Amino acid sequence: MRKISVKPFRPVYPSPAALITSVASDGKANIITLGEVYNLSVSKPVIVGISIAKARYSHKLISESLEYVVNLPTTRILEKVDRCGTMSGRDVDKFAELGLTPIPASKVKPPLIAECPINLECEVIKIEEIGDHDMFVGEVIVEHVDEELLDERGRLQVEKLDGLCYVLSEYWSLGQKLGYHGFSRHIK
Amino acid sequence: MRKISVKPFRPVYPSPAALITSVASDGKANIITLGEVYNLSVSKPVIVGISIAKARYSHKLISESLEYVVNLPTTRILEKVDRCGTMSGRDVDKFAELGLTPIPASKVKPPLIAECPINLECEVIKIEEIGDHDMFVGEVIVEHVDEELLDERGRLQVEKLDGLCYVLSEYWSLGQKLGYHGFSRHIK
Repeated sequence: MRKISVKPFRPVYPSPAALITSVASDGKANIITLGEVYNLSVSKPVIVGISIAKARYSHKLISESLEYVVNLPTTRILEKVDRCGTMSGRDVDKFAELGLTPIPASKVKPPLIAECPINLECEVIKIEEIGDHDMFVGEVIVEHVDEELLDERGRLQVEKLDGLCYVLSEYWSLGQKLGYHGFSRHIK
Repeated sequence: MRKISVKPFRPVYPSPAALITSVASDGKANIITLGEVYNLSVSKPVIVGISIAKARYSHKLISESLEYVVNLPTTRILEKVDRCGTMSGRDVDKFAELGLTPIPASKVKPPLIAECPINLECEVIKIEEIGDHDMFVGEVIVEHVDEELLDERGRLQVEKLDGLCYVLSEYWSLGQKLGYHGFSRHIK
């Protein structure tokens, strides 16, 4: 296989598309669509990161309030996810404009989005400039999951997630489950 | 929809599974399987991040050499990806053990993995402790792509990527393309 050298641009994928909620000082909520959220510390404590360009309205809001909620969308609300990325919260109330439903969070001021089956309440523990984006490192204080995604033992069933992937400026669904971590130990 | 509060653990997904190559001071190459690589700066410059626990052999190697290569695997080599995560490079030569093919990189010492269609040569610009993992921030110096993935204009065709997603300890394929960034502008 011949390999070609190309100009890199956002070169790793698929990544989880996400709707991030934040609030202004007057309590008005905003939403930003991001192509990516990432895990930084998996359990002790649980920490995620989001990267936002300085010019974005959500950059200002989260820098001031030091709180955000990560809402993982489904393919069913893809059009809302994409439309959310085409307008600015400086000009419109995105919840009203998009027909999304805010639910009060339990520990932070930004609301959860009812239409997203997974919601992570985050407190910002660090903001760091990395190249053309700023990284908002957030400790996950509370996780909410739609009850219908959990099995009888409380485990999340990926088959019911309907997760939305972002890949090189395209939105993709998940395909098929191919294996689980460690499955190869059981293959001769 | 009723929402349940759950104990968070690595709560964002799907993420891109990756094979990260590094080298020891004697030049011997190693590979670590990670469930995730993330974009931190998209274009000026292009910067990615990987998170590795301190106990891992690759943590030591990358901390010393300050270089790594991100190799994005396909579903076709899933068993090798998973097996790579079940052994330590302290004990075995993973390239030999897994039947993967090293190719010399152009700017860094760790090799590319021939069987992975996308390879990013990275120079570490920062190492930062975040919770239970350390983040290795890497500037992408060179990107290599298998020629067969590119169209006649040199654009990567996601349909040919055969990308491998990691979701809550499971491996998943990509499903279907559902739209592109900004598609909703063209819907009435």
